Amino acid sequence: MRFTSQTSSDGVTEQLFTSSFTFGEIPGVLWTPDGTAGTRPLILMGHGGGQHKKAPGIVARARRSVVECGFAVAAVDAPAHGDRPRTEEHDRLIGEMRNRMRTGGDAAPVLAEFHTLLAGQSVPEWQAVVDAVQKLDHVGAGPVGYWGMSLGCELGVPFIAAEPRVHAAVLGLNGAETSPEAAAQITVPLEFLVQWDDERVPRAASLALFDTFASAEKTLHANPGGHAEVPMFELDSSLRFFTRHLS
Amino acid sequence: MRFTSQTSSDGVTEQLFTSSFTFGEIPGVLWTPDGTAGTRPLILMGHGGGQHKKAPGIVARARRSVVECGFAVAAVDAPAHGDRPRTEEHDRLIGEMRNRMRTGGDAAPVLAEFHTLLAGQSVPEWQAVVDAVQKLDHVGAGPVGYWGMSLGCELGVPFIAAEPRVHAAVLGLNGAETSPEAAAQITVPLEFLVQWDDERVPRAASLALFDTFASAEKTLHANPGGHAEVPMFELDSSLRFFTRHLS
Repeated sequence: MRFTSQTSSDGVTEQLFTSSFTFGEIPGVLWTPDGTAGTRPLILMGHGGGQHKKAPGIVARARRSVVECGFAVAAVDAPAHGDRPRTEEHDRLIGEMRNRMRTGGDAAPVLAEFHTLLAGQSVPEWQAVVDAVQKLDHVGAGPVGYWGMSLGCELGVPFIAAEPRVHAAVLGLNGAETSPEAAAQITVPLEFLVQWDDERVPRAASLALFDTFASAEKTLHANPGGHAEVPMFELDSSLRFFTRHLS
Repeated sequence: MRFTSQTSSDGVTEQLFTSSFTFGEIPGVLWTPDGTAGTRPLILMGHGGGQHKKAPGIVARARRSVVECGFAVAAVDAPAHGDRPRTEEHDRLIGEMRNRMRTGGDAAPVLAEFHTLLAGQSVPEWQAVVDAVQKLDHVGAGPVGYWGMSLGCELGVPFIAAEPRVHAAVLGLNGAETSPEAAAQITVPLEFLVQWDDERVPRAASLALFDTFASAEKTLHANPGGHAEVPMFELDSSLRFFTRHLS
């Protein structure tokens, strides 16, 4: 793990890093409280489709998690997103999706195939990032939480199912299409967000995914509005949820 | 309004009262912080079917609302519940419900008729209670919230629709059968609780009632478990919700 920059503002240290990994390098960012060592809970944040590790919604949530809860927060570019290269296979699937959308075809199966491909890459990547980040003095090997909406949920489900270090997760804005088997293996406490008028995720698919999780403690929070309109009070709720389960 | 007893424990004053009303007397209870005057938010709590104003779930929620938030809390016996007499019409409907349940008939239409009868009584009763309680020095005319599950939701919906002094409400464990017209008139912020495996309220009926509310801010919280198994962390959430909207 190699840090490429470090800045600080309003009590939050932001470090850009590159985490070397068997199959390549993962660009990421780590937010921690200024000038404090010692073990603390680590929240992993998975960005949405077409976004990246420093998308405004990620940065805002990460900074509040650090300032209000003293957590460390890490985000990485998902495969084929942000600063990461696309493979020929990525390009083929993205091209096919655009083509189907343009011609009124059904892009959903291609999107599902694309997401399955990305999840196969991102699960071991997230595990490598946890390995590396938890070796740092100012993070340590504390409990891990995962936060991810939309693509971040899609890639989070198989990761959480595979990774016993994740103790709690906030997921949402996604349906049950891609990873129902992984969802059925998740037993950690969950907060699951649904946008009641989501133009991209059918309501029934969201409810089906919530149904599938095996967690004894899981809460569905549904709010009116479209895919990108999650109300800010849900961030307050997420922070309290992580504090309850990770502190 | 006449107080019949006053006790205090752990910083909470509990006053039993009888509120005179055009059509009779309503037995109620008021919880407030010990020894403080001045206007404060007032939460009205509507108990469930077969319960009463001092059911354990009501008392526990009321005391925490007073201690943690400084609210005043009032609960009354719903018509035909607790210390209140039943009319011949109440007895007829209750007998018919029991008869149908015993013989495997459909009790739901009789229950709906019973609830409609009770709601017609309880709406003006709650209004009279707010009138009386808000005249007290240690309550005053502050913002009003309503909390009610199951029957407390059933009777709360037409009350909230009719009463502009209610600024926010926590409702739940009820479907859309009885008062869809009233539900469609509600525009205040709502938190709406659903038990995902409710043996008494069909999931689809709960979701339909949530859909019907006209509130711009409404959040559905769904948790696994049966009708009586709402997790205690939802009380934390309710208190934060009322604090956000009434303080």
